[in-house]
Amino acid sequence: MEFPIKQIAEMLQGTIEGNSEGNVNNIGKIESAIAGDLCFLSNPKYEKYVYESEATAIIVSNEFEPKQDIKATLIRVEDPYLAFSSILKFYEQLTKVAKTGIEQPSFQGNDSSWGEDVYLGAFSYVGANCKIGNNVQIYPHAYIGDHCEIGDNSVIYAGAKIYEKCVLGKHCVLQAGAVVGSHGFGFAPQEDGSFQAVPQLGNVMLEDFVEVGANTTIDCATMGSTLIKKGTKIDNLVQIAHNVEIGENTGIAAQSGISGSSKIGDKCIIAGQVGIVGHISIANGTTVGAQSGVSKSIKQEGSFIQGSPAFGYKDNLKSQIIFRKLPELNKQIQELREKILNLPAAE
Amino acid sequence: MEFPIKQIAEMLQGTIEGNSEGNVNNIGKIESAIAGDLCFLSNPKYEKYVYESEATAIIVSNEFEPKQDIKATLIRVEDPYLAFSSILKFYEQLTKVAKTGIEQPSFQGNDSSWGEDVYLGAFSYVGANCKIGNNVQIYPHAYIGDHCEIGDNSVIYAGAKIYEKCVLGKHCVLQAGAVVGSHGFGFAPQEDGSFQAVPQLGNVMLEDFVEVGANTTIDCATMGSTLIKKGTKIDNLVQIAHNVEIGENTGIAAQSGISGSSKIGDKCIIAGQVGIVGHISIANGTTVGAQSGVSKSIKQEGSFIQGSPAFGYKDNLKSQIIFRKLPELNKQIQELREKILNLPAAE
Amino acid sequence: MEFPIKQIAEMLQGTIEGNSEGNVNNIGKIESAIAGDLCFLSNPKYEKYVYESEATAIIVSNEFEPKQDIKATLIRVEDPYLAFSSILKFYEQLTKVAKTGIEQPSFQGNDSSWGEDVYLGAFSYVGANCKIGNNVQIYPHAYIGDHCEIGDNSVIYAGAKIYEKCVLGKHCVLQAGAVVGSHGFGFAPQEDGSFQAVPQLGNVMLEDFVEVGANTTIDCATMGSTLIKKGTKIDNLVQIAHNVEIGENTGIAAQSGISGSSKIGDKCIIAGQVGIVGHISIANGTTVGAQSGVSKSIKQEGSFIQGSPAFGYKDNLKSQIIFRKLPELNKQIQELREKILNLPAAE
Repeated sequence: MEFPIKQIAEMLQGTIEGNSEGNVNNIGKIESAIAGDLCFLSNPKYEKYVYESEATAIIVSNEFEPKQDIKATLIRVEDPYLAFSSILKFYEQLTKVAKTGIEQPSFQGNDSSWGEDVYLGAFSYVGANCKIGNNVQIYPHAYIGDHCEIGDNSVIYAGAKIYEKCVLGKHCVLQAGAVVGSHGFGFAPQEDGSFQAVPQLGNVMLEDFVEVGANTTIDCATMGSTLIKKGTKIDNLVQIAHNVEIGENTGIAAQSGISGSSKIGDKCIIAGQVGIVGHISIANGTTVGAQSGVSKSIKQEGSFIQGSPAFGYKDNLKSQIIFRKLPELNKQIQELREKILNLPAAE
Repeated sequence: MEFPIKQIAEMLQGTIEGNSEGNVNNIGKIESAIAGDLCFLSNPKYEKYVYESEATAIIVSNEFEPKQDIKATLIRVEDPYLAFSSILKFYEQLTKVAKTGIEQPSFQGNDSSWGEDVYLGAFSYVGANCKIGNNVQIYPHAYIGDHCEIGDNSVIYAGAKIYEKCVLGKHCVLQAGAVVGSHGFGFAPQEDGSFQAVPQLGNVMLEDFVEVGANTTIDCATMGSTLIKKGTKIDNLVQIAHNVEIGENTGIAAQSGISGSSKIGDKCIIAGQVGIVGHISIANGTTVGAQSGVSKSIKQEGSFIQGSPAFGYKDNLKSQIIFRKLPELNKQIQELREKILNLPAAE
Repeated sequence: MEFPIKQIAEMLQGTIEGNSEGNVNNIGKIESAIAGDLCFLSNPKYEKYVYESEATAIIVSNEFEPKQDIKATLIRVEDPYLAFSSILKFYEQLTKVAKTGIEQPSFQGNDSSWGEDVYLGAFSYVGANCKIGNNVQIYPHAYIGDHCEIGDNSVIYAGAKIYEKCVLGKHCVLQAGAVVGSHGFGFAPQEDGSFQAVPQLGNVMLEDFVEVGANTTIDCATMGSTLIKKGTKIDNLVQIAHNVEIGENTGIAAQSGISGSSKIGDKCIIAGQVGIVGHISIANGTTVGAQSGVSKSIKQEGSFIQGSPAFGYKDNLKSQIIFRKLPELNKQIQELREKILNLPAAE
């Protein structure tokens, strides 16, 4: 397929700089593009590749000021990453064949209701009394327990597992191996030192447009619902414990863990490998830096914290700089002590 | 269903404070309870909700001293969390229908023996020469390799996988996606820099009442057994490497990792995202704080350690407090140096 | 089976010290060996067991100098771990029956090509247009999407999942529950604060002899390939994000995470629970200590770094030592300040 640069610029409401007559036939990465490729520049780390790129066209920001000559045609837009994402979406729709139909053997429990154009892969399992929406795709080895609801246009990839009574909204995505509704870590210590398992009787609710990464685990509530609100995106291998509540449009990167009953606000960014203790609240718009450990509620909206235990990002950075100098600092202190002790006046 | 408060208090061997004539018809969370609900108060963080709660009855500790008026009837017990757990267990038994019977298609290998009242979900796989106890529940997509033993009343949730020759005791639980018996990270470096895989020929043994969280992985021993003793509870996404040994009634929270051949004692608490290096021993009753890294054996029973690398919890806390003040401290040191150098006597 | 010590020494090109006439009939761990066992000593931590061992023969290093009498026959070799690994491999080949044949029901998509002696477990799924090599073993519940290639002698354990278009070389191993080709965390923020999912259209390529641990996740590239080169070994619960590139013969221990588009060199060692940010490069031969956070490119080959954020291993160690003394240091500083302020000369 060939696409005129003009047509692409029009789609993106962008402006063309350079030769507007060419065509592109593929999408590529800027660091390895060849003639015919359409690329984008968003992260400034990759700017150097723009000047040597063989790409036919490059999507750049309106603000981008080239420091050298560029061979490629530029398409200027407000947000190059978003624009490129639209192009990828368009390309995906052109090239990808949506899975549909029922492969055999698959398991359909009694009294479940089915929307139109559902894909049910071989060896997928849907329990009794479920409600499956239109255009839902359930890949092979996916497991959906009894009494679940899956909203329209949701996709459950291979081997994802949903325990009974859980509810997924519309346009949700579970990547392969994700677990929704597992029984959380609730054990009451007994006098003899053993643990009694606390029954976990609640469920998980994912609102519309929630995406859950591969092998991520979300525990059901002890009672009520573990709740992930609209538009929130969760990466791979994340742990969400029982009774957690996460707001709208929050992003949680890989391998982070949220302990039981904590509440995360809207539009938060939780970077990778972060740990958040139980029973605390994180205000809307909070950013938590990678590998941080959050042990107290964050009340100030828009906070940016870092460290384990976490405090203000910039303050943490300053402390980290001194941390590296600690041996030198220690030496200075010992020298000072020496001098002071030797001072006649100090005696 | 309605339950008289009197009957509940009797079950829990608790004492009633306030109106003893009411009934409850549901169990709820104290922060969102409505009339008819039975709740509990254990974590002091939630005390404020007691005074405004619409719940009909609240289970509290014998020691609890109200600071304001409370509308609800109180049921006083020794351990509210344990008491509530019993109520939940009772409620679960009343309302939950145990899965039983054989769903088709499922796979039963040759020469396996089967206890009574086993549940075998569709697409579950049990290999050859296995021994499955009474009342065992094997959910859809669970995989049990050849020569495994599963004790009475154990539950293997959807898509959990058990490699060949592994042994589970009675009353064990594997949450969805848990892997037991995978081949550990054993690679012998060769002269050319490549790795030769070391065959992993041992197995995993879980004693009675061991519970394993969703997507947790437990590697088989190179030889012999990776061993998890009676009553130990392991949360989601935990990594237990080959030849590890974990004592009785120990709890390991989500995303922690225990490296090869380490031994963890009885009644330890390993908080979330902890890392423990290989070939060390952790004494009975040790508590390891969240995100800690343990690089040396802990010989003193009942230790409480924190940090990466970990040392005494309180000492770590004190160092962390100063860590935050490092920029200020550095400034003080530089001022002192300035002063000392300018002292005529210091020359 | 009984094996003469002489035969084993010959196989390993080792030299015998002590009684060369005995036989061994089993392989054991040095700390719990009994008569008839063959053991090895590699990690010096285990040396004490050599002197009290009931083992019949022990493989030790040429350099090993006993400090007490040893009852067992010693077999001296250059690398005891490697030698023992060969023995285990030999033993495995003698005792393990390779899975082969097609179990039913299994799913074979249209137009896929099949090598010789393939094992296809019950409930395994191979999509359309796949190319499966000779001696490939695909265990129950494994999922292989459309258009995948699996090279000769590769093993896909139970419930591992491979998304469409991914390519595995020869002699690759995926442990149970591993996910290869999941859609990475690519979301373009929109003006209203919501995220637009960026289509992930690339794949994952594993070159020959790559091994992937249980429940590890490797995301497909947005475009092009996420690439793991020849001989690299990845442990359990590791996260490899989209567009990452990992060199040859690198080892990555459990629960580490590599963020998007980062490049790791050849022969690196990434210890457990390490985090590496996106868009950076790690030079060949770099060692990253456990729980470290790497936020900048490492340009010097053979570096050894530690900490979060990570810097030189030895420097980090020195700073960590002072970190523990911070409360004492703070006290010293405050005492010095007191003294200086009280000095008449300081005014």
